[in-house]
Amino acid sequence: MGDEFLNLLEPYEAEKILNSLELKKSVEKVGIGECSGRVLAEDIYSTIALPPFNRVAMDGYAVQAENTFGASEDNPKVLKLIEVVGAGDQPKKKIMEGTCAEVGTGAPAPPQSDAVIMVEYTEKSDNQVMVFQGVAPGENITKKGSDIEKNHLLLKKDTVLTPDKIGVLSAIGMAYIPVYTQIKVGIISTGNEIIPVGEDLDYGKVYDVNSQTISSAVHSCGCIPVGIKIIADDFKVLKNAISRLMNEVDIIITSGGTSAGAGDVLRSVIEDMGEVLVHGISFKPGKPTLIGTLKGKEDKILIGLPGYPVAALVVFESLVAPFLRRNSGVSVSDESNTIQLKISRRFHPSRGRTHHLLVKVRDDIAIPIQKDSGAITALADADGYVEIPKSTEILETGTLVHVKLFRRTTGLF
Amino acid sequence: MGDEFLNLLEPYEAEKILNSLELKKSVEKVGIGECSGRVLAEDIYSTIALPPFNRVAMDGYAVQAENTFGASEDNPKVLKLIEVVGAGDQPKKKIMEGTCAEVGTGAPAPPQSDAVIMVEYTEKSDNQVMVFQGVAPGENITKKGSDIEKNHLLLKKDTVLTPDKIGVLSAIGMAYIPVYTQIKVGIISTGNEIIPVGEDLDYGKVYDVNSQTISSAVHSCGCIPVGIKIIADDFKVLKNAISRLMNEVDIIITSGGTSAGAGDVLRSVIEDMGEVLVHGISFKPGKPTLIGTLKGKEDKILIGLPGYPVAALVVFESLVAPFLRRNSGVSVSDESNTIQLKISRRFHPSRGRTHHLLVKVRDDIAIPIQKDSGAITALADADGYVEIPKSTEILETGTLVHVKLFRRTTGLF
Repeated sequence: MGDEFLNLLEPYEAEKILNSLELKKSVEKVGIGECSGRVLAEDIYSTIALPPFNRVAMDGYAVQAENTFGASEDNPKVLKLIEVVGAGDQPKKKIMEGTCAEVGTGAPAPPQSDAVIMVEYTEKSDNQVMVFQGVAPGENITKKGSDIEKNHLLLKKDTVLTPDKIGVLSAIGMAYIPVYTQIKVGIISTGNEIIPVGEDLDYGKVYDVNSQTISSAVHSCGCIPVGIKIIADDFKVLKNAISRLMNEVDIIITSGGTSAGAGDVLRSVIEDMGEVLVHGISFKPGKPTLIGTLKGKEDKILIGLPGYPVAALVVFESLVAPFLRRNSGVSVSDESNTIQLKISRRFHPSRGRTHHLLVKVRDDIAIPIQKDSGAITALADADGYVEIPKSTEILETGTLVHVKLFRRTTGLF
Repeated sequence: MGDEFLNLLEPYEAEKILNSLELKKSVEKVGIGECSGRVLAEDIYSTIALPPFNRVAMDGYAVQAENTFGASEDNPKVLKLIEVVGAGDQPKKKIMEGTCAEVGTGAPAPPQSDAVIMVEYTEKSDNQVMVFQGVAPGENITKKGSDIEKNHLLLKKDTVLTPDKIGVLSAIGMAYIPVYTQIKVGIISTGNEIIPVGEDLDYGKVYDVNSQTISSAVHSCGCIPVGIKIIADDFKVLKNAISRLMNEVDIIITSGGTSAGAGDVLRSVIEDMGEVLVHGISFKPGKPTLIGTLKGKEDKILIGLPGYPVAALVVFESLVAPFLRRNSGVSVSDESNTIQLKISRRFHPSRGRTHHLLVKVRDDIAIPIQKDSGAITALADADGYVEIPKSTEILETGTLVHVKLFRRTTGLF
């Protein structure tokens, strides 16, 4: 038994190795009602002109503008009303000299009309309309294609589909949208002591925490957690489980079983099935983190997180989440989730390792939570964490720190 | 036909009226695997102690500490090895004077042991263990309940269930979680010219944009869009549709049909079915926005958004989304979604109304998009919008503005 890792890497070195690995991208079409938050897999061109016809922009009368020139309160022009065209109607008559059509906002401008005079400047009696003011050609008509012509680029590949972009796809009538397939993440908790939530808790057992936290965190990266399993710390059992799961998923994330010691079964399994690329990262907590590849019809990536829930979650957030988000195409700047606050009291970080310190936020102050990484109440209290570089010897009271909030993603997309 | 609104309210007045209305809250239990992003409806107490037993924190030997006192390299204490207890095992024997048990991290400390000596300070031979260093009582054992005792408050009602909090619920073995029921939002697009995406586009028709943008935006508020319908601008048809839909949902959001003019069918329907509370808000775009209540077995709220897509979306984001988020309990500070940038060029906002200006963000500069609120390409280009107070006469080039980004919610929760 030993506590030695062959190569304790710096976080940036581990990131570099992880980022050199590839997750295969594939494309699927999903209904427009289900594409929120998904990522466009193709450039989208306008398949129609927008607006698709000369569209009336105001309630009023469609006219030939020159028929209104010189009109005034004292000297109105009188036009014959030949038709009423509402939004959604198809005009049946052409506007000729001396005629007009009553039109509603959104209606197609009748053929040969070139302006709409607002209803305020008119007076209707029977089938005649008096016009009290001239209107310039083009006025109150939005020309066909003036927003965008047919076959122009509307949205670029890799655009994240927020409500506004979904509106753009709707405007050209797309019912099915080409998006990248979501990455499938297999999730395994290892440990003989771990049992699923909902079961009775026998002496010596603890409930599985990591599958649930990691599944939820995987969701927040735009990926799908699948095949959640609890597996004993046994070479054969673990190898069988990984062999089966790797064919169903794009990447496997395990937790537990990574400590350098008697129970270090995971490392042996990876060595047997593929290659261990990283074992041991200069994180506190989270040192035993493992990154490996599994050989098969398609090679797959396996990331082994530590067993303690706090360690598993902060390693996921700091190392794995950026990788998954970038591969999902939902990469967002971390800034949107990071706030700068003063720390409530002096804190001595772990020397020589990148320290992820859980904090709670109260009254715009970051309060360090000092509990070991097995403490669940640390998670109950925490709002996020601060990444402290290994070179930092001390954080004095009031030092500004960047708090990465646990993602309060509100989109139940 | 007229362009008059009886009462053009300031945005804060409309907000106040909307916020005085109530959405009924109900509670449901959902599986822990499906509760990401949902909101706890009850305080959660620890139903078990954590850890649930005295837990070994290091691989080593469980001992009675006083048996190791005085041990040194030269003068080791020799203990009889009576058992091996791994994580998940149940120890069968008590540790008596002169005995020890080999224990793994996560295992229960055997009865009457009070410390674990790290394997580094020992040497094993057959069934004897030599101990080369004394260990203090309590060392390397995490006491039962030291994280939290049974029946203590773990998580407060109204907590948003992020991965960390889901971990806490898992730790006490909860399989089903009491959360607030998601608000059901009925969505209606009105207009005779509007047809669903996927259909052929006849002359004079346009595709339905607003149901899709508003559905997606409703999702991002933690609510469920339901019964998406396109309804003609006809009193009877619209009234029937609203009457049916109001029994299935908590709130109805319509778009279109709110202009004060010939087509102002929605207002008449609301007046017939309940009460118009707001019609006309001092927004640009978005003036014709309507807020009303519908009388029934249970009264329901109806919000009528303008028909133009840009207007509908910015009114939703600025007025409706905060209301839905607060009622969903997923209220997040707008700050996390707001960035401060310089504006690229001089801009004259609309005088006398709160102006929502779409902007695109390039190289940390906010570039105004000046297209009318019917332009779809405005949405294609936009990254968010700037709210300009009505008192602002001019924004000079380089003025700092707060850009509210269209929510790039990445959580496919």
